[in-house]
Amino acid sequence: MVLPPFAAIAKKERCALSPHADSTSHRATRDRLERLRALLRRDGLTGFIVPHADEHQSEYLPPAAERLAWLTGFTGSAGAAVVLPDAAALFVDGRYTLQAAAHVDPESFSREHLIENPPSKWLASRLRPGDRIGYDPWLMTAAEVRRLEAVCKAAEASLVPVRGNPIDRIWEDRPAPPLGAVSIQPADLAGEEAADKLARLRAGIAEARADAAVLAQADSIAWSFNLRGADIAHNPVALAYAILPVEGRPSLFVDGRKLSNSVRTTLADLAELHEPTEFTAALAALGHERRRVLLDPKSTSAAIADAVSEAGGTVVDGPDPAELPKARKNATELAGMHRAHVRDGAAMVRFLAWLDRTAGDGSIDELAAEAKLAAFRADTARRDGAELVDLSFDTISGAGPNGAIVHYRVSEASNRRLEPGTLYLVDSGGQYRDGTTDITRTVAIGAPSEEMRDRFTRVLRGHIAIATARFPVGASGAQLDTLARAPLWQAGLDYDHGTGHGVGAFLAVHEGPARISKAGTVPLEAGMVLSDEPGYYKAGAFGIRIENLVIVTPAEPISGGDRPMHGFETLTLAPIDRRLIDPALMTAAEIAWVDAYHARLVPALSHLLDAADRAWLDAATAPIASRQGE
Amino acid sequence: MVLPPFAAIAKKERCALSPHADSTSHRATRDRLERLRALLRRDGLTGFIVPHADEHQSEYLPPAAERLAWLTGFTGSAGAAVVLPDAAALFVDGRYTLQAAAHVDPESFSREHLIENPPSKWLASRLRPGDRIGYDPWLMTAAEVRRLEAVCKAAEASLVPVRGNPIDRIWEDRPAPPLGAVSIQPADLAGEEAADKLARLRAGIAEARADAAVLAQADSIAWSFNLRGADIAHNPVALAYAILPVEGRPSLFVDGRKLSNSVRTTLADLAELHEPTEFTAALAALGHERRRVLLDPKSTSAAIADAVSEAGGTVVDGPDPAELPKARKNATELAGMHRAHVRDGAAMVRFLAWLDRTAGDGSIDELAAEAKLAAFRADTARRDGAELVDLSFDTISGAGPNGAIVHYRVSEASNRRLEPGTLYLVDSGGQYRDGTTDITRTVAIGAPSEEMRDRFTRVLRGHIAIATARFPVGASGAQLDTLARAPLWQAGLDYDHGTGHGVGAFLAVHEGPARISKAGTVPLEAGMVLSDEPGYYKAGAFGIRIENLVIVTPAEPISGGDRPMHGFETLTLAPIDRRLIDPALMTAAEIAWVDAYHARLVPALSHLLDAADRAWLDAATAPIASRQGE
Repeated sequence: MVLPPFAAIAKKERCALSPHADSTSHRATRDRLERLRALLRRDGLTGFIVPHADEHQSEYLPPAAERLAWLTGFTGSAGAAVVLPDAAALFVDGRYTLQAAAHVDPESFSREHLIENPPSKWLASRLRPGDRIGYDPWLMTAAEVRRLEAVCKAAEASLVPVRGNPIDRIWEDRPAPPLGAVSIQPADLAGEEAADKLARLRAGIAEARADAAVLAQADSIAWSFNLRGADIAHNPVALAYAILPVEGRPSLFVDGRKLSNSVRTTLADLAELHEPTEFTAALAALGHERRRVLLDPKSTSAAIADAVSEAGGTVVDGPDPAELPKARKNATELAGMHRAHVRDGAAMVRFLAWLDRTAGDGSIDELAAEAKLAAFRADTARRDGAELVDLSFDTISGAGPNGAIVHYRVSEASNRRLEPGTLYLVDSGGQYRDGTTDITRTVAIGAPSEEMRDRFTRVLRGHIAIATARFPVGASGAQLDTLARAPLWQAGLDYDHGTGHGVGAFLAVHEGPARISKAGTVPLEAGMVLSDEPGYYKAGAFGIRIENLVIVTPAEPISGGDRPMHGFETLTLAPIDRRLIDPALMTAAEIAWVDAYHARLVPALSHLLDAADRAWLDAATAPIASRQGE
Repeated sequence: MVLPPFAAIAKKERCALSPHADSTSHRATRDRLERLRALLRRDGLTGFIVPHADEHQSEYLPPAAERLAWLTGFTGSAGAAVVLPDAAALFVDGRYTLQAAAHVDPESFSREHLIENPPSKWLASRLRPGDRIGYDPWLMTAAEVRRLEAVCKAAEASLVPVRGNPIDRIWEDRPAPPLGAVSIQPADLAGEEAADKLARLRAGIAEARADAAVLAQADSIAWSFNLRGADIAHNPVALAYAILPVEGRPSLFVDGRKLSNSVRTTLADLAELHEPTEFTAALAALGHERRRVLLDPKSTSAAIADAVSEAGGTVVDGPDPAELPKARKNATELAGMHRAHVRDGAAMVRFLAWLDRTAGDGSIDELAAEAKLAAFRADTARRDGAELVDLSFDTISGAGPNGAIVHYRVSEASNRRLEPGTLYLVDSGGQYRDGTTDITRTVAIGAPSEEMRDRFTRVLRGHIAIATARFPVGASGAQLDTLARAPLWQAGLDYDHGTGHGVGAFLAVHEGPARISKAGTVPLEAGMVLSDEPGYYKAGAFGIRIENLVIVTPAEPISGGDRPMHGFETLTLAPIDRRLIDPALMTAAEIAWVDAYHARLVPALSHLLDAADRAWLDAATAPIASRQGE
């Protein structure tokens, strides 16, 4: 599951390429925009900013937070709108240009490039002295507000925080906030008692010279308290807030209706439990006590910082204290990730074998393949005595040219058959109680072209360069990213997304802070789990991506070397389509890597496969060298 | 000539490893420190900051600006001192720990690590409310002042700009500012008339929404006005300031004694000529006129920004407008660089052949080799009808373990013989009117060990990876740096300096803004000249570095590719010691690169060589493959 190369557009990529919006939906957009403008006039505002965000800066939004989609009709996963009296603009990045064109009423919203002409730039040329631009401080981070405030100040306009989002006041059938049941992640899966985690965090907060920290991100709270939830699709988290004081008990603000009696008892041992409605008062109390409160400016709503500082507290900018501890998986979490990847790999083998047996005649389509894969995941988990809790994201099931759309999401309208002579790209993953998976395989349907094999082999060489990399302590993902691109660069090719992102342990499939991309400046540390997923996309023709998850291994000296080095261990277990590999383009060491990787699969996965699939896997993982001799 | 990996220590590395300081010099240090403290007391200051810097933020300092060396005895090229009433500290980076220990009185100055415990951090724990810390605003940039101001503010102390550096008031025999003669770089070498350059800069300044820019860096002024000077060792620049208004004529502030009548006439066509003493008044005049003045906060003294803003002007932060145009060499400059590299390569061949003939018996030492190389450079330039104006930096001539000292500078005390069974590392360059060179070769004296050949071959593979890299438009040096390190990383090895720096055209051998290092975020553009110089250093044993200069080639589509790519063309022409290459560790493509590179040398250099050296070069550049067959 790829991340774009820039942090600014690091939201999850999803896109329902459904049919073009019809005139009814355009009429609805006009009506909503008109009502919003009327409301703004009444409130004395010149304009209003509508970001794609919720109150927790989540990547996936609950339906109640899909305000941008409700107002504009745009359902992409990153973007923003700005509404002025006589102009309104929707800002999307390059991935969403086509989708926005298809779905959004051009008479209501002009379309702007989120990166090249962001709201701040667009506003700069339109603001007049005295303008009052409203924003919802729960939906924007302090860092975002600072940027826009500078623009407004330069134009002698003001940026005005608005309490009570105007969209919510005109969105009659706005869904209720989610009430997914909270469960406890037991220590034999989490590998550390929540009380011990909270003690570690407390020490980190004290080190940052703060009296308390506020956690607002759902996965940070889930990790810290060993809880899981069901509030957001594909993310086993509960929307909540937490205040962690250096002295005294933490406070957890979570809707009580999500808690069973036993969960409530467990959590009450760790923290004071409060309703979310009490959160703002608790922030103000920190302020009244003149506390220094640690907040992550890149992931915490500006409203939280405002509440603390307006009541007299001091905001200490710093990274979310749970971010790094969560990213460094402990031995128990890694063992769980390994188990999840065995089960998930067996499901992939069953799917790939099925595809190989049935797709050659063009009878399978993207939707059928996606459904079959989900069924194999659920069934294989049962075979393994486990449970597929959810998929870890919406499956990307792209045949032929659809595989070249990096953020493709199949719909009835876009659905294509897997035709002979094309490539099929499938990027998918599962959420299991012991781990999260994320894998992409690209499969030849019928005979591939020489171009496809050349490109696939280059992508594979880039993948192997990451998988086999050694790098010194302190090196970041930014320093590795090019290793994955060099084989493509040599041929005048590249891909427009990052090479890898962090992955949670039964948590978010996109997890910070480390990543393998030119924006990935965080040093890699032992136990971090990252994806390794270079790709190549030929618009209108085919897409290739090869994705495994890897673990950063502990830094050890290499014999004969003079400094400790990290490396990667590959977690994901599923065959790479040898029909797409041209061994003539590879070094002997690269071929040996593929053969050694394939040799791991039969011993690891056979116990979850029936005889036919075992035989298929045997053949699919035969060494490349001997296959050349066939 | 290597740059360290971090921008913060990007000053030129020089180090005279002369004998330990004696008690006389320690007594002098104590006396000077006492007099400085007395002066500070009289002026009502608690402390004072003494950076290694001049009024132009030059890399090499004129003797008059060596205040840090005068006060502390430390002659390294990067560092700072802070003097308090009861404590004083000298801050140096890891390269200078030994030198500082040998030369600086430990009773006067504690030694601190410039990066890990910089002055701001050191001060933070020592400042008391009401303390007044002085600094010379001509010797610190606005960015540096902002950092220290924040520290002082947090401690309720104040940072006080001091007019008239206290060191200058107690340094009786302080040298006079340099008065090197200014010359004009003719358009047939510069490739563009100064008037046209100034018009281009004017457009850039207008684009930055400024009314004028101030140039303070000597090489920016030299490039913009097509002038050269002789104020600083190895840098053909004149210390000067310039004000470039969008409307009206530029002003150039340069000591009139440096100008001949004809130079004065040429420059007076381009600009109003003023004495440097008039500069501050001119800055104030910009302020009085309420001008918006573009200043580079990372390379302009804080005093310049202060003078503008205190008089009512507005400072616009932005990069030096000459920085990028200067880095993108035009066709004439590149032709000159090529000519300079032919001449310089022939000198290197004469030197390497001489070394090969004479050094095997251990009779040559580092000083003799350095002198011989300088003589070959001067003589070869004469043969070519040209002139060696200067070396482009102090030659690094390191035998055996001295080669492992990255910033080594040979002295009588450190001088070693080139012994059989060791490596000799020589990093050197020339300043010619048509170009600047910078080359490192590592030579086997007698038979090298297997370890030396392994390490050399890894360094060479990294060098080749950069030389043959293709990279998309917009890619930066940070994205390439790892390609040079990967062969070493695989063996648990690395080097602690950047892979490459920009090089000027008859200008500074270290030129911004692009570089190949993890800090090199500036996109590479066609015409930029960079060094490619990976290395490996085994402390106490040997050092290896292989350095060529390369030109970024214009972005062109590669056949079959789908986006335009940049690449590099190698400028430097001198053989790489094949006795140190282990072809068994290389790919066929890498061996072919070495052979193709070597095949360029005889045709390019022979006309400047005598028969014996031609024969030597013939043998030294024979293909590796055929040598294997020997």
